Amino acid sequence: MSETAPTTFAEIRALLDQLPGPDLAAGRAAAAREAQLTKPAGALGRLEDLAQWLATWQGRHPPRIERPYAAVFAGNHGVAARGVSAYPAEVTKQMVRNFIDGGAAVNQLCVLVDADLRVYELALDEPTHDFTERPAMEEEDCARAIAYGMIAVEEGIDLLCLGEMGIGNTTSAAALCHALFGGAAADWAGRGTGIDDARLIHKTALIETAVAKHRLAMTDPLEILRYLGGFELAAILGAIMAARLARTPVVLDGYACTAAAAVLHALDGHALDHCVVAHMSVEPGHARLLERIGQRPILDLGMRLGEASGAVLAVPLLKAACACHSGMASFADAGVSGPG
Amino acid sequence: MSETAPTTFAEIRALLDQLPGPDLAAGRAAAAREAQLTKPAGALGRLEDLAQWLATWQGRHPPRIERPYAAVFAGNHGVAARGVSAYPAEVTKQMVRNFIDGGAAVNQLCVLVDADLRVYELALDEPTHDFTERPAMEEEDCARAIAYGMIAVEEGIDLLCLGEMGIGNTTSAAALCHALFGGAAADWAGRGTGIDDARLIHKTALIETAVAKHRLAMTDPLEILRYLGGFELAAILGAIMAARLARTPVVLDGYACTAAAAVLHALDGHALDHCVVAHMSVEPGHARLLERIGQRPILDLGMRLGEASGAVLAVPLLKAACACHSGMASFADAGVSGPG
Repeated sequence: MSETAPTTFAEIRALLDQLPGPDLAAGRAAAAREAQLTKPAGALGRLEDLAQWLATWQGRHPPRIERPYAAVFAGNHGVAARGVSAYPAEVTKQMVRNFIDGGAAVNQLCVLVDADLRVYELALDEPTHDFTERPAMEEEDCARAIAYGMIAVEEGIDLLCLGEMGIGNTTSAAALCHALFGGAAADWAGRGTGIDDARLIHKTALIETAVAKHRLAMTDPLEILRYLGGFELAAILGAIMAARLARTPVVLDGYACTAAAAVLHALDGHALDHCVVAHMSVEPGHARLLERIGQRPILDLGMRLGEASGAVLAVPLLKAACACHSGMASFADAGVSGPG
Repeated sequence: MSETAPTTFAEIRALLDQLPGPDLAAGRAAAAREAQLTKPAGALGRLEDLAQWLATWQGRHPPRIERPYAAVFAGNHGVAARGVSAYPAEVTKQMVRNFIDGGAAVNQLCVLVDADLRVYELALDEPTHDFTERPAMEEEDCARAIAYGMIAVEEGIDLLCLGEMGIGNTTSAAALCHALFGGAAADWAGRGTGIDDARLIHKTALIETAVAKHRLAMTDPLEILRYLGGFELAAILGAIMAARLARTPVVLDGYACTAAAAVLHALDGHALDHCVVAHMSVEPGHARLLERIGQRPILDLGMRLGEASGAVLAVPLLKAACACHSGMASFADAGVSGPG
């Protein structure tokens, strides 16, 4: 991937035009098989939709999940120095250590669902600029982070779970959503890792002021990302694009991850068609955001951890969709009577 | 279990008084450990609650799921002859064959989550009586079905998933709910395997008339079960009781399974404390029923298949709760800073 890695926004925009569409034939094959399986039509609900979606975006029938992969991008945020998080910024690096040592939630979940996990660090000693003062990133740095995210899509994987770690990044995510979708800053700001009322008011005011300050300069979604985003969020956007090019369906995690994806959706309303959102975060902006990008989460378990935990938790359900689709007997094979 | 198997309702009522309560010490140990793990407090949402619930009802800390077990009870219903289902009654037996041959959805799901599956047939050639005419079961037959369900709780299992197969049994389930909770028959009747409007009207009217006809005779929840239930639903009630006695947490499936459980709840408001409902069925009475018995489903995937499919699908989420709870590092061990 590195020989074609974009280094400017113009190159990234050009890449958008190359994103492949759905494999409708594979999707039709899935729908045709589904109708023959020993169950009332539609009785497996969302599992049936997911099997068809996987076929459509893996470009093969039957769909299979044999090599799921979880990529967690970690970055630091200048705005974290403003006291927007319950945790100090050094926790980003400490948690990366914890991922490497196997002690985090996502490690346990990856073992359980038999997914490979890789953590991608984005210059943790060099946080983005504080977006309340100036653009968080230079164009070149932002484009490089996107390109870095593109390398996460390894050869041979058949499902990509995306997640992030970055103290301060729900502030960045809320700012992205406020700039992309309007409304009030309070619609998008939440408690993140668990801030109290006073900090939430402070966080909301910072977002409101920063977005208003940069409003005129942010002339398109990539500029919004550059002004308000973070390296790990830019990398997620890159990983989503690369997955599309590789015909690898994507599972998005919670609020920060989906906010990064929303930048891509704003650039191209079909750019997330190969993505599914794993779960509804407790972060109140997430429900609003999902509505804006037309996504329905698979799970709703009151989670708000990030680090791809929700995305990996959805893997067994996607595997279940494949297993039922591929393994069930047909009415004819099993000698089961149809409706009559 | 057979030497103590109840054969009368009086014996079943007596058994209710012997159901053990929660192991609060195990639950407290789980809560204490949860607070030390490397995540913001509460960030794993429902997974944290489920880990504590599993500890409380397995009576051990940490909770473990190493031998999940799925029991599917199959029975036939006299009321099926009234044209309340989209499928003919012989499908019950054909689907049991399909379970044994490994071709049904639940077979694929059990392989995926590494759960043992066993199908329990309840006299498929002798359906219950048509409850629109007379009580569906004699007391002795109903008590025997409950006792049969009790044997499903094998030694050494640590999670019991319950489900059913029985053409006509959403009609029975709706009648049970209507009798237990009141309201209108239309509140509880749904499309089951997929009946059209005309059949739904017919099904609803049958339920309304039958419940009104037997109202005065149904003097307690076990009598409601006897008049309106089915053998497989009685067996589910027995399995739930036996699991409680064996300190085995239970995962309930969809509408018919939960309706059977609701009979037990009506007998004793704490009798389902060791049970969790796996998913929200499309069957419209299910949401109402869950509200009445104070249960919140884990999944909501638009499913309506029965055969324990939803219950088994929830197993990976319960395993995930255990895996995170047991495997994660503490803040102290990982050298991660707390909130500050």
